[in-house]
Amino acid sequence: MSLYVGVAGASRPEPALLGEAELLGRRLAEAGAVVVCGGGPGVMEAACRGARSAGGTTVGLLPGLDRGEGNPHLSVALPTGLGQGRNLLLVRASDALVAVGGGFGTLSEIALALRTGTPVVGLATWSLHLDAVAVEAFPVADDADTAARLALETARARRSDPARTPGDA
Amino acid sequence: MSLYVGVAGASRPEPALLGEAELLGRRLAEAGAVVVCGGGPGVMEAACRGARSAGGTTVGLLPGLDRGEGNPHLSVALPTGLGQGRNLLLVRASDALVAVGGGFGTLSEIALALRTGTPVVGLATWSLHLDAVAVEAFPVADDADTAARLALETARARRSDPARTPGDA
Amino acid sequence: MSLYVGVAGASRPEPALLGEAELLGRRLAEAGAVVVCGGGPGVMEAACRGARSAGGTTVGLLPGLDRGEGNPHLSVALPTGLGQGRNLLLVRASDALVAVGGGFGTLSEIALALRTGTPVVGLATWSLHLDAVAVEAFPVADDADTAARLALETARARRSDPARTPGDA
Amino acid sequence: MSLYVGVAGASRPEPALLGEAELLGRRLAEAGAVVVCGGGPGVMEAACRGARSAGGTTVGLLPGLDRGEGNPHLSVALPTGLGQGRNLLLVRASDALVAVGGGFGTLSEIALALRTGTPVVGLATWSLHLDAVAVEAFPVADDADTAARLALETARARRSDPARTPGDA
Repeated sequence: MSLYVGVAGASRPEPALLGEAELLGRRLAEAGAVVVCGGGPGVMEAACRGARSAGGTTVGLLPGLDRGEGNPHLSVALPTGLGQGRNLLLVRASDALVAVGGGFGTLSEIALALRTGTPVVGLATWSLHLDAVAVEAFPVADDADTAARLALETARARRSDPARTPGDA
Repeated sequence: MSLYVGVAGASRPEPALLGEAELLGRRLAEAGAVVVCGGGPGVMEAACRGARSAGGTTVGLLPGLDRGEGNPHLSVALPTGLGQGRNLLLVRASDALVAVGGGFGTLSEIALALRTGTPVVGLATWSLHLDAVAVEAFPVADDADTAARLALETARARRSDPARTPGDA
Repeated sequence: MSLYVGVAGASRPEPALLGEAELLGRRLAEAGAVVVCGGGPGVMEAACRGARSAGGTTVGLLPGLDRGEGNPHLSVALPTGLGQGRNLLLVRASDALVAVGGGFGTLSEIALALRTGTPVVGLATWSLHLDAVAVEAFPVADDADTAARLALETARARRSDPARTPGDA
Repeated sequence: MSLYVGVAGASRPEPALLGEAELLGRRLAEAGAVVVCGGGPGVMEAACRGARSAGGTTVGLLPGLDRGEGNPHLSVALPTGLGQGRNLLLVRASDALVAVGGGFGTLSEIALALRTGTPVVGLATWSLHLDAVAVEAFPVADDADTAARLALETARARRSDPARTPGDA
């Protein structure tokens, strides 16, 4: 069974992140992982382009009802009609999640993954403070290569852990 | 963009339906359609087996949180954690839906498709009466070949109708 | 803990059903039950009007994002943004469900309730056939008084059954 | 139409927050607002206790399928079976949201509210940094009185803004 790695990121990110997202998608696909995302433009499209360029499979969980709103690099485009409710679907469909850049949708995906036990890797994304104290809730990668490696490692570890029960309590 | 045809059906159907479901999946895949289903055993597994045997792509929208509960013939297995809430996802992800056999989950998918304007084709499935009068709400096929043909036709017609707005009001 | 009884029905029903729906709501409220519905017009509004006239509590699970789309007889109006996905929420929120009249949304609620073990009572609603054989999947009441009584009985029985586990497998 | 204010917070918070949450609930109810929450223990229960002590209405959107898991101070307890998917329901049901304390579920609710345009007020909760720069995405209150006042003001402003369209794109 393939690993599924989610890529969360904004539809209008800083341009510098697009190259990173594309490389991330390529590395994940080269390792045989399915790339799951929200199916939109920006970070999502770049990651899909990278994955497809390496012969990979990409899945888009679209917020609306129209399949045509998906980016052109999706192997499978699924309209959900759930709006931001598809963010939780992305987390549940992912063995690990890479969060690229900012955006509040991305932040919600980080939070839902942390809440439900899905490993998260950050790349130029949010960091969290509680009562003015930094909380290191997930590892942060400096580049796409490292992000892909960490995500694959944590996804594999989670998959092979017999004690793990899928959790969403 | 490929057509997506949903296949709804019970996990423990009458055995006679399994051959029909497998042929249905094969015909859909031969026509280039992606087969979407709930990812489980029974009708769903048979349709996926047929689609894969013709080189097709199959997507399973699983009710639980564990990818391992999917049948072995899924190209893409997506745990949703929505229980029967994935039934609406199946409808929204489908350009047309074929309902095979009985089961109340299948009935809910027929109803949700009719409610939201997704074409439905029946194969040995529920028929509806209101106040003791039969309501012919969707075409019924006599065999898998006919079901596949009708589903593909209605899916294509819906896709190409410029006046259609995706609906779920 | 109060009983919660769901009332499913169309937003544009046959006019004759409105009086029945209003009486149903009144009877449920007189028995102390909370009335849950989709919050819209038609059957839903009539049931809420009846329940409020008896001092009852009514909850509307709205399909859209705008609280203002709820009918004026809701104690609590909750926009869900789930479209027809709120139908499953209605079922899950109900200890028993009364289906009044036709409509495919109502049919989906009947099916989801049957699928997940929520007792259903029909009132001038769909009946089901499988392979041309009638399937008596739920009791049918001849009038609102009987529907209310049956719904309250089955809701109470379900609540007090220690072996029952909430089900949505 | 009443204002609905969501209260997000952990089920096992720091004890010091419970008094604040209870006062917050009381102030919201005194102003006539309905308090919506996840229905659980901890911050949620404290806010409900406060609201009920002032004669208010409280709504719990439970993650599971069992109404009995709700806290004892709920006017209306609704099992959703959506797990952390109820977090988005809480946001959609709220005219404004107060986030009390930490917890990743609370963080997801903050993020979903910011993403969908629901006003957020923080009380001893997460703060956000992007690329090591603090992002002041929502006002932070120093005590429950201020949090209630800010939430009611922003909820009222949002309700009365004719240009606002409910958003979840």
